[in-house]
Amino acid sequence: MHVSTLGIIGVGLLGGSIALAARRRGLADRVVGHDQSPDVLAQALQSGLLDEAHDLPAAVVAAAELTVFCTPVDCIAPQALALAASCHQGAVLTDVGSTKAAILRELDGRLPAGVVFVGSHPLAGSEKNGPAHASATLLEGRLVVVTPAADTPAQALGLVCSFWEALGARVQTMSADDHDRALALTSHLPHLVSSALAGILPQPLRELTASGFRDTTRLAAGQPALWSAIFEANQEPLLAALDRFEERLALFRAALGAADRQALEALLEEGKRIRDGLGR
Amino acid sequence: MHVSTLGIIGVGLLGGSIALAARRRGLADRVVGHDQSPDVLAQALQSGLLDEAHDLPAAVVAAAELTVFCTPVDCIAPQALALAASCHQGAVLTDVGSTKAAILRELDGRLPAGVVFVGSHPLAGSEKNGPAHASATLLEGRLVVVTPAADTPAQALGLVCSFWEALGARVQTMSADDHDRALALTSHLPHLVSSALAGILPQPLRELTASGFRDTTRLAAGQPALWSAIFEANQEPLLAALDRFEERLALFRAALGAADRQALEALLEEGKRIRDGLGR
Repeated sequence: MHVSTLGIIGVGLLGGSIALAARRRGLADRVVGHDQSPDVLAQALQSGLLDEAHDLPAAVVAAAELTVFCTPVDCIAPQALALAASCHQGAVLTDVGSTKAAILRELDGRLPAGVVFVGSHPLAGSEKNGPAHASATLLEGRLVVVTPAADTPAQALGLVCSFWEALGARVQTMSADDHDRALALTSHLPHLVSSALAGILPQPLRELTASGFRDTTRLAAGQPALWSAIFEANQEPLLAALDRFEERLALFRAALGAADRQALEALLEEGKRIRDGLGR
Repeated sequence: MHVSTLGIIGVGLLGGSIALAARRRGLADRVVGHDQSPDVLAQALQSGLLDEAHDLPAAVVAAAELTVFCTPVDCIAPQALALAASCHQGAVLTDVGSTKAAILRELDGRLPAGVVFVGSHPLAGSEKNGPAHASATLLEGRLVVVTPAADTPAQALGLVCSFWEALGARVQTMSADDHDRALALTSHLPHLVSSALAGILPQPLRELTASGFRDTTRLAAGQPALWSAIFEANQEPLLAALDRFEERLALFRAALGAADRQALEALLEEGKRIRDGLGR
């Protein structure tokens, strides 16, 4: 897998890591990028994440055969549409957004001929932010979900899948809807739950927390603007995941209210069995 | 702080760590212990956690001026009552149980003269178990809550507080009821939530989890028998904590149902502010 020019829109932690890994692995002759923050862009260039930094995103997509949008989920489709007319002929666009169906719906039938968008989602987060934390190995061994639509050209799909694999990731393809339903349960609900738990801790009890509380609420430190956009973009699947979670809480509540030790233990056993199956 | 003989009933991770730390710090001339599992007891002796291992717990309390019960919360009071008649004259008993009020209620007025129980709870857990993971530094810098009753003799309370401090821990005293209400929110509810989240993950989605799901569900790997006993012993405060959590979920649900981005962001901001205040 090799392109002459790789473009990155948004050179924060993930965009910066992708740029760096692509350079290190020689996947492109040059990696060009843009960020809405001039400081972040300058830092990315200075840290050697990029070969070229562009103040205008149009200059990135004009040069790049493959451009990766590493911007908030609610910005990706509007940006792709705004930049479509500037795109390199035959350009392939992809992204790293945590939800996929809303983006595909927004782009459906609206991109010009010769420009293809293929949705991607690398399952590689971090509570850290910014290009200063970029790592060439962030994607190694991680799973990237790629979500082709019915009309996605095989060549564009192949390019995007090969790109992620060349960065050391594993690729799984599925529909955008399947992705969103799955991630509602495996990522968005845990974030919501983590935040809800942190949100009810009264100040005087902070001293009485230990590692358990901190682990369970680690996700709550994520960026509210990014996550409120993800929640909104995945509204229906997240509401359905919340239903399932609340049903489970109701089982705990009933067992606890009845002081039914066996029922409590059976619920905890099931959680433990599943959690143990995930490894560390 | 120094005793001639320190007793440990239950030499798993926590009991073993306390024994080891006490030996290393020279807090007792000898540390004697018992475990209901002959294998665990033999291992603790062989690993140098104990000076002496006793097959009968009565032999431990007969020898020790201070005995620490490191057994499941529902076993502590029955064991203390069963062993009271064998206790060293002037013996002080303490424990490491995660709930306090139920134990104090069960013991209230039932211990013979010359035997005092002072409840303790070191906030130092681990998902690991057994004496093989014992660490002499497990309690260093950790908080131990000590829960005296109105009639607890000052001398016994002082001995227990000095003991934990001599192991490198910080001590805070509060009533058993205050402790239980606080820990319902900071420890027992996170455990319940973590288990409920793990419990609803369907097998095919395991591949689609990343570090966020694993962090949020880490507590679910805890021992179901221990935790169902803790939940039952702290029934009312835990139900109250669950009420508060479900009220918070209802706010998220309403904001999400209305696609109210600002409300979602405000909820997430509040959780982030509190979580950031806890540090790593």
